[in-house]
Amino acid sequence: MTKMLTIALDAMGGDNAPIEICKGAVQACGQFDDLEIVLTGDEEKIKPCLSKASSDVLKRLCVVHTTESVLMDELPTSAIRKKRNSSMRVAMEMVRAGEAQGCLSAGNTGAIVAGGVLVVGRLPSIDRPALGVPLPTINRWTFLLDVGASVRSKPLNLYQYALMGNIYSKKIMGIASPEVALLSNGTEEIKGDDVVVEAREMLLRSSLNFKGYVEGDDIVHGKADVVVCDGFMGNVILKFGEGLMQGARSIIKEEMGRRFMPKIGLLFMIPMVKALWARFNYEKYGGTPLLGVKGTLIKAHGRSKAPAILGALSAARNFILKKGVEHVSEELESQERNADCAG
Amino acid sequence: MTKMLTIALDAMGGDNAPIEICKGAVQACGQFDDLEIVLTGDEEKIKPCLSKASSDVLKRLCVVHTTESVLMDELPTSAIRKKRNSSMRVAMEMVRAGEAQGCLSAGNTGAIVAGGVLVVGRLPSIDRPALGVPLPTINRWTFLLDVGASVRSKPLNLYQYALMGNIYSKKIMGIASPEVALLSNGTEEIKGDDVVVEAREMLLRSSLNFKGYVEGDDIVHGKADVVVCDGFMGNVILKFGEGLMQGARSIIKEEMGRRFMPKIGLLFMIPMVKALWARFNYEKYGGTPLLGVKGTLIKAHGRSKAPAILGALSAARNFILKKGVEHVSEELESQERNADCAG
Repeated sequence: MTKMLTIALDAMGGDNAPIEICKGAVQACGQFDDLEIVLTGDEEKIKPCLSKASSDVLKRLCVVHTTESVLMDELPTSAIRKKRNSSMRVAMEMVRAGEAQGCLSAGNTGAIVAGGVLVVGRLPSIDRPALGVPLPTINRWTFLLDVGASVRSKPLNLYQYALMGNIYSKKIMGIASPEVALLSNGTEEIKGDDVVVEAREMLLRSSLNFKGYVEGDDIVHGKADVVVCDGFMGNVILKFGEGLMQGARSIIKEEMGRRFMPKIGLLFMIPMVKALWARFNYEKYGGTPLLGVKGTLIKAHGRSKAPAILGALSAARNFILKKGVEHVSEELESQERNADCAG
Repeated sequence: MTKMLTIALDAMGGDNAPIEICKGAVQACGQFDDLEIVLTGDEEKIKPCLSKASSDVLKRLCVVHTTESVLMDELPTSAIRKKRNSSMRVAMEMVRAGEAQGCLSAGNTGAIVAGGVLVVGRLPSIDRPALGVPLPTINRWTFLLDVGASVRSKPLNLYQYALMGNIYSKKIMGIASPEVALLSNGTEEIKGDDVVVEAREMLLRSSLNFKGYVEGDDIVHGKADVVVCDGFMGNVILKFGEGLMQGARSIIKEEMGRRFMPKIGLLFMIPMVKALWARFNYEKYGGTPLLGVKGTLIKAHGRSKAPAILGALSAARNFILKKGVEHVSEELESQERNADCAG
């Protein structure tokens, strides 16, 4: 018999909750026979969203009613502390209690991080958890972290992000010896600010396959498997990249709207556009793990629709099956033991 | 009679020097009747590059022979201090001596900034100069600074960048009341690191049309005329954006190469592609002014070819004609007087 796994899904988090979240859950249960999903949130709002699910899927979907939701612009820590019956907190508590193997939310990012620390709990050997995101580049997937769990980081934080990114790349993405790099304002040794310079020193002494600094364009050109930066920087470049994609689309649409010929041209391009889309559709891979906490905790984009939720649930399932949390935890503990021995 | 203006051009700076630099100079003199260019560098290498110029253009091009060049990976300050006969330093000295109204180089960015401070000189009311770049966005030009004159900044530096960006937007780009914003990791008040938070407080008290924080995607969506960040961040996002553009091009080429149909489709799209190119070809506008120094000092991209040099010379000419340096200097002094009165 298939071993089942359970994911707690915050049905009220994100701009398109609960309808798109529920749709994504139904699709994921349809796709993965081993998946059970617990939807946390307002039962009255969730139930109608599940009406079209088959009986087989419905058997593996259940709703845990909650009376509160964390809003997108709420102060993260106080929202998690005070709204004890929020859909987000209840989903996380299921992970802590072992009732679910993982949790997914498209809600308030700060609250997800705060909940990761306060509800699920930090790994003892980690100072700060990090949000990482796999980005499609020209020739490989590059795992970028931190993209916003913290604002600024100390050198030790960057060092720990590198360790966690390395494990993610190895165990989840299947890279034998991931190339790890620090994001800086130039590749030469003399570049970087004080924090990056010190993190570089620490990483040069580590056992990682550390490649030194990479620059902004190197991310796109796929110069490393893991790129480490602080959360302020990671947040800005991730959003900037998203903005450029949206911008390109809307500008091409606008220029197309003015002309007739390009529309004919586009017909000839449909297979190519589809291939490009298949290659770079991040929704398929959507889902940003919070690394450094004692459970599988995945954040989906606030604007997620059903396909992105399906992608994030698939990422969560993959992370659980590949024992992401256990690997990160073991790696950090072994690093700590080595440091103790060396010290 | 037309009033002539002279620009000193570092003919040895950049990846494509001297040939592309010289070509750009010839094109610029052809385009602007009021332009004289002094090319600094190795006379023997420069002269052959000018062979195709018309006699009218040649009359307005002269070469000042120098024996050294600043290399792309050289330590900036020591290169400027020690290589006193480098093409870059000699060009800057012409600005200081008033023999040229402005200077352009596609060479080592750090050395251009160091030369700006050590040779041309800092404006007395400025702590640190900033490199700014006008970016095409969906609905307007956004001036982003600092993109790499410094690494990290204090709140006062960010504040001064905002003042200088405001003047650039007003006087050079012709915006009546520029919307000025700080780049942050979210638009809410609670976002930002300590430096950004303090800069925000200072800007809220200023007379600028200050809009608070913008996020990475807001740059692309044209949410402000001036966006301020530190040089580390500015450098990374500028290069990341460049990388995405190059990456998109090479991926589309690759996908096209595999198929025949899209090539037919492209024929129908030529007018649209041309329109897009005309709208977003940054080479036309290329040229990054170093603001906060006592002369017109423009940096061109290290990879510049002739069209980008032409664009940067045009930007330099425009900056001189519109009295960019004088306006920045007056604005900063008047701000200082106001602060003195208030204090």
